[in-house]
Amino acid sequence: MTSNDGIRLVGFDGDDTLWRSEDYYHAAQADFERILQSYVDLHDARTHERLYAVEMRNLTLFGYGVKSMTLSMVEAAVEITGARISATDLHRIVSLGKELLQHPVELLPGIREAVEAIARDHEIVLITKGDLFHQENKVRQSGLADLFHRIEIVSEKDASTYARVLSEFDLPASRFAMIGNSLRSDIAPVLELGGWGVYMPYHVTWTHETEATVADDAPRLRRVAEPSALPAAVKSLALHAAA
Amino acid sequence: MTSNDGIRLVGFDGDDTLWRSEDYYHAAQADFERILQSYVDLHDARTHERLYAVEMRNLTLFGYGVKSMTLSMVEAAVEITGARISATDLHRIVSLGKELLQHPVELLPGIREAVEAIARDHEIVLITKGDLFHQENKVRQSGLADLFHRIEIVSEKDASTYARVLSEFDLPASRFAMIGNSLRSDIAPVLELGGWGVYMPYHVTWTHETEATVADDAPRLRRVAEPSALPAAVKSLALHAAA
Repeated sequence: MTSNDGIRLVGFDGDDTLWRSEDYYHAAQADFERILQSYVDLHDARTHERLYAVEMRNLTLFGYGVKSMTLSMVEAAVEITGARISATDLHRIVSLGKELLQHPVELLPGIREAVEAIARDHEIVLITKGDLFHQENKVRQSGLADLFHRIEIVSEKDASTYARVLSEFDLPASRFAMIGNSLRSDIAPVLELGGWGVYMPYHVTWTHETEATVADDAPRLRRVAEPSALPAAVKSLALHAAA
Repeated sequence: MTSNDGIRLVGFDGDDTLWRSEDYYHAAQADFERILQSYVDLHDARTHERLYAVEMRNLTLFGYGVKSMTLSMVEAAVEITGARISATDLHRIVSLGKELLQHPVELLPGIREAVEAIARDHEIVLITKGDLFHQENKVRQSGLADLFHRIEIVSEKDASTYARVLSEFDLPASRFAMIGNSLRSDIAPVLELGGWGVYMPYHVTWTHETEATVADDAPRLRRVAEPSALPAAVKSLALHAAA
């Protein structure tokens, strides 16, 4: 019995699993705060919390991604400054979004080797959420696209999304493992379906993605600190799955 | 020999083929011009052309959809007014985008019956471009989702996109017909691949979608005026394809 009798398909998240992402969002939010500081006392204004509140309010309308965040930043800036912000500064906020969209893709150190190693024993699929156009550009730039059997760009990563992807592969969740940095989006819904997970936390995580209830010592879950540890973690899960 | 020996799969475009869309964009652009008219002489400013120029400049960065247009509107408004526009008015422009995203889906008259009739003889697929999140919401609201074997939301509708969809159906283009209102996005790339097309023009068309070189009397193309004529047009193509 080989290790992939148990797990046939391995999914990878994109942002902050294959390539850096949240760092750039954080940098853009710091720039956003610098623009606002000529209008308001930043300590009182709690710009970060207020931007997050506007983003959450808009989530069901905008979905995820840079364009959504940029529109929310414009809205939040008008609110936070009591509409005193200049058109030039609002345009600078739009430009922050444009810079984010143009940022070159930077793979995490060691991820290419890890993806290649896992692809030798399993079919692999990229499952990433957010803006279709931006994610497609990142996949193209990453140089990893050819390694994946399929690339799924989805609007939300919940149990029903994973169930749909698995049905297209005609595979039960018990033969699927997902690798990602978000307990909420990559791990919890897959464990819920009866699948397996490898949680690789990133050094920064968007507040929204921390809202998950999975215990990270769940028996079908491994936790790794860096990409080089991924192949062994998948092998360990696969041995259990095949047992 | 039955008619679907020739054409097995029929694709439908979404916006302005299944449901109204461009009307709302036009209305939002009229509102946009009304906001600008307190800053500039609209006749001189040629706001419509200048907005379109900003949109085209941003297309490779933003892709299609309401959020992209809204960000371009904010940028164009700052440019057109020489940065004199108020934060309140820029926020109104963001609100125009939010209203567009919340607009209820209105099916074109007779389209449900046409889709059902074609679905009786063929597998059908919805191939729509634009913002993933917004398009998914529209598909869900349309009440037509269950009729389609598959729903493909793509970032661009060119020959390579159609080739990828057809490869997933394991089908040559000669057995595929596409129905849509855009010669550029729905018809030309499918004819180029050797497929068939039914062109159903909408009463308004975004300038960008008119930039196509297909002759609308191409032998593998039918042109219809309204949804009720679609089933007969598909039947006519199918007879030719099977011949």
